[in-house]
Amino acid sequence: MKKRIIKKIDTSKRNFLTGSATLAGVAAATSVLPISIAKANHEDSDPKGLPDFIKWKNREALIVHSKKGIEAHRSAIGESIITPIRNVYIRNNMPTMTDAQIGDRNKWKLSVEGVKKPKTFTLAQLKKLGQTTIATVLQCSGNGRGFFEHGPKGSQWRTGAASCILWTGVPVKKIVSACGGIASGAKYMTCTGVDAPKDLDPKKATVERSVPLLVYKESILAWEMNGVPLPNAHGGPLRSVPPGYFGINNVKHLGKLAFTETESDVKYMKTSYRISPIGKKGPEYPSCWEMPVKSWIVRPTDETGVVKSGKVQIAGVAMGGTKKISNVRVSIDGGTWKKAKFVGPYLGKYAWRQFVFEANLAPGSHNLASKATAGGDSQPELRYENRRGYAHNGWKDHSVNVEVV
Amino acid sequence: MKKRIIKKIDTSKRNFLTGSATLAGVAAATSVLPISIAKANHEDSDPKGLPDFIKWKNREALIVHSKKGIEAHRSAIGESIITPIRNVYIRNNMPTMTDAQIGDRNKWKLSVEGVKKPKTFTLAQLKKLGQTTIATVLQCSGNGRGFFEHGPKGSQWRTGAASCILWTGVPVKKIVSACGGIASGAKYMTCTGVDAPKDLDPKKATVERSVPLLVYKESILAWEMNGVPLPNAHGGPLRSVPPGYFGINNVKHLGKLAFTETESDVKYMKTSYRISPIGKKGPEYPSCWEMPVKSWIVRPTDETGVVKSGKVQIAGVAMGGTKKISNVRVSIDGGTWKKAKFVGPYLGKYAWRQFVFEANLAPGSHNLASKATAGGDSQPELRYENRRGYAHNGWKDHSVNVEVV
Repeated sequence: MKKRIIKKIDTSKRNFLTGSATLAGVAAATSVLPISIAKANHEDSDPKGLPDFIKWKNREALIVHSKKGIEAHRSAIGESIITPIRNVYIRNNMPTMTDAQIGDRNKWKLSVEGVKKPKTFTLAQLKKLGQTTIATVLQCSGNGRGFFEHGPKGSQWRTGAASCILWTGVPVKKIVSACGGIASGAKYMTCTGVDAPKDLDPKKATVERSVPLLVYKESILAWEMNGVPLPNAHGGPLRSVPPGYFGINNVKHLGKLAFTETESDVKYMKTSYRISPIGKKGPEYPSCWEMPVKSWIVRPTDETGVVKSGKVQIAGVAMGGTKKISNVRVSIDGGTWKKAKFVGPYLGKYAWRQFVFEANLAPGSHNLASKATAGGDSQPELRYENRRGYAHNGWKDHSVNVEVV
Repeated sequence: MKKRIIKKIDTSKRNFLTGSATLAGVAAATSVLPISIAKANHEDSDPKGLPDFIKWKNREALIVHSKKGIEAHRSAIGESIITPIRNVYIRNNMPTMTDAQIGDRNKWKLSVEGVKKPKTFTLAQLKKLGQTTIATVLQCSGNGRGFFEHGPKGSQWRTGAASCILWTGVPVKKIVSACGGIASGAKYMTCTGVDAPKDLDPKKATVERSVPLLVYKESILAWEMNGVPLPNAHGGPLRSVPPGYFGINNVKHLGKLAFTETESDVKYMKTSYRISPIGKKGPEYPSCWEMPVKSWIVRPTDETGVVKSGKVQIAGVAMGGTKKISNVRVSIDGGTWKKAKFVGPYLGKYAWRQFVFEANLAPGSHNLASKATAGGDSQPELRYENRRGYAHNGWKDHSVNVEVV
């Protein structure tokens, strides 16, 4: 495991500040990190403020890698399944569209192609076609990149470019049926964002992603996220949600839904987001599509302060991509595995599942690891080395060392 | 139905403002109401600002009845099951405790009595005993009081003193087992808040609530709400959550958990929150305990702007109290009932369930009503008239009139 220097601070004192009586309460009410850790981050490793377009997020919960790459601290995704919206990571390829660019949200347009009767719908019209809610894991393809040692380019995420979200929108199959069905020969569902600045080459700047056709049956186009209208920063007013697929396939500022015979030929489909060996690249390598089974512990960690010996609740999250999680095992000694217990409601196979493992920890150093299984696949011990550091689900890198006193 | 004057405004223009680029974005990002409606409320019926202790809430989503009674607009509970925390109603009997009064949250104390080995736990110790997450409806006993016509005292809530919340905390049965079991003779679980100001008569000011003993098996003591540490305004750092029971039984700022032979004799148990006929009061009437089956439509309503004729998705929420919702029926003509469809994940019987009913609405006036059934009980047509306007679950008052153009 790559070492990361975090100040060890006694957070038994004033661990959480919430709901104070002033405007500072806005931030405080949803702060999830020990203030001292947050301060340490501000002062040391992470001095950057939030960019203007996400000033409403919870600064103390987040690590700012760049203006377009902001992840949640490991302990900041919450322990109640759904990630608080102010703690949800940001990864933008293009600048977030502004209210002025978006205009009247109900008049936002979506064109539908590759169907028997191509049509253009306004958002208001889409809302009349159908409505449902699904819970999915939204995770950047490069989440875990920070553990790779060959120095892949991109945000050095560890665990925090991931979240579990409740989305509300229209099932794609309702749109298909309003358009007379899918045109023959289609093999992909291809979604196009309209956020590419006009002065850039559309082939390089358009975020257009194709996924295998049948994914449409489970997909929705969402206008609401965790109970609020989809914020611009997360692709408002409309975003595609192909459940179980990496974040890049959840196209923001969605302007076109098409059923196509071939994959899109824009850069973001053809060459970017390809899982290739180190030193190699090209469209022949697998695209970042389905997320592999993965899990990690969120508490205790080096962020959550001193751990006292005795009974400890080790909590984490486990996700199966497009498959249902069947079990999670936890090790407190880097070797012996024991089954953890699932807790909380089951939100469907596309959501992550909370697990808790009750351990008796003696004083000293402990390596805490988790390993999930879904659809017969278990997390491997090691990462799959690849050029851009994508799709990391090795359990070893994701383990945490804690000092028990 | 009591009439309520709301300006009819064409909200097809700029219905939602989200994620703007400035600090105003904090509010905007989770705004769920047409701005014009929100302005109308500010100017006309609801000119009050948010009190300091909840300045972090979403003003535009809320109706301020008083400094201690704030409800969500009918369309502001979100359509993704879980209510956004900034839109969750506030009902305080005692002032919210401040950070200074609470002190170090991990050292917060809970005494446990009426068990074989009475003990006092710190919050840090409770976190070591166990952890789970449950989704429950949190609803004020008087939600719907605004529909009563005899003028019961209290906040004139209509639908918005209710929410669906994900709580994380320790199961009470884990505490019981750490204390050697419940003492013999106990018939109630009695929870005590420590928020009563010292200069008031404790019998009158202490929020202490007893519920039937067996409720403990499903109850938790929560330190997290929707993924964030429990805000002071919602009873932080620790609150009891007896699922399916009215809000008052979810005791804030919890200092004592006791298993008792008799119900508490404080005012808030003995005489307040009793469902008595108009003109009568006293401890002989039923307490506000289990919530009855209930439902209401959240969209379309008179808040959500012009409804155009044709296919419309009618959406709402249905709750069964302690019983699982079996079905919801919708009427668009004040008489004929048809089954609505449940959508979204099932979060357990204590959460509310989203429903959607697809209707073809012709131009003209329509009365939209919903009627839920749980455990064999269906919502009655009319409210049960009672002195303080508690436990209203009649479907007629909760229906909405919409004008279709």
